[in-house]
Amino acid sequence: MVVDPGPAGDLDPGSSRRYNPGMRFRHHLFVCENRRDPSDPRGCCAARGGEQVRAALKAELKRRGLDGTARANSAGCLDACADGPVVVVYPEGVWYARVRPEDVPEIVESHLLGGKPVDRLLR
Amino acid sequence: MVVDPGPAGDLDPGSSRRYNPGMRFRHHLFVCENRRDPSDPRGCCAARGGEQVRAALKAELKRRGLDGTARANSAGCLDACADGPVVVVYPEGVWYARVRPEDVPEIVESHLLGGKPVDRLLR
Repeated sequence: MVVDPGPAGDLDPGSSRRYNPGMRFRHHLFVCENRRDPSDPRGCCAARGGEQVRAALKAELKRRGLDGTARANSAGCLDACADGPVVVVYPEGVWYARVRPEDVPEIVESHLLGGKPVDRLLR
Repeated sequence: MVVDPGPAGDLDPGSSRRYNPGMRFRHHLFVCENRRDPSDPRGCCAARGGEQVRAALKAELKRRGLDGTARANSAGCLDACADGPVVVVYPEGVWYARVRPEDVPEIVESHLLGGKPVDRLLR
C-alpha cells in the first residue's frame, strides 16, 4: 500500500497538503493529558489544564457538527511539557502551545473549518 | 501560517505525501493504551497488549537510531477497540490493527525506514 491521495484527493483549505480521502479523520487532534507527580519540576499538561482543553474541544467539535470528521484524542506526554497544555493536529502536524479552553472555538473556526491555523497559539 | 512543505520538502519514500521539514517528528506513532474496566464488553487496547506494543516500539526506534525523528506516543481511546491494539502513524494517517510486539521490527523496517506500510497489519 502506498499512501497516495490520488487525483480525487481534495486540497485542505489553506494548505498545500493534500487530504487523503482514505484517512479516517480529516483532523485528528491529540491533546496532552499527561499527569506527573506534583513534586516533578517539569510539571505536566494535566496540571496545566489539558483535560479541560480536550473537554472543550470535544464539545466544540460536536457543536459545529465536526465530530464525525475530527477527533479530540487524549495523548500521553508529547514531550513539550514547558509549553503545556499542548495540542498537535494531524495530518498537518501543527503544534499549539499553552492552549486554554477559551481558545478552542478559534482553533475550530479558523483552522479546522477555515484551513488557517491560529498563529498566536503556534508552538 | 500555511502548512506548506515548500520546494525543500523531500518526498517520503514510497509515498506521494510530502514531508514537511518544519514538522517536529517525521513519524509520530500513537499507540492506544486505553484501559477499561474488565467487565466492559468492548474490551480495551491495554488489555490486548497496547502497553507492550508501545514499549517494543520505543525500544526498536532507539535501536535503529530513529528516536530523534520518530516518537512512539501513548494515546487514549482511538475508537477502534475491536481491532486493538491499534497504532496510527502520522502524518501518513496509516492505521494498524491487532499489532503484537513481534510485529514492531517489520513496521519500523518497512514503513518508517522503507516507506512501505505493512499491508498485512493495515486496519
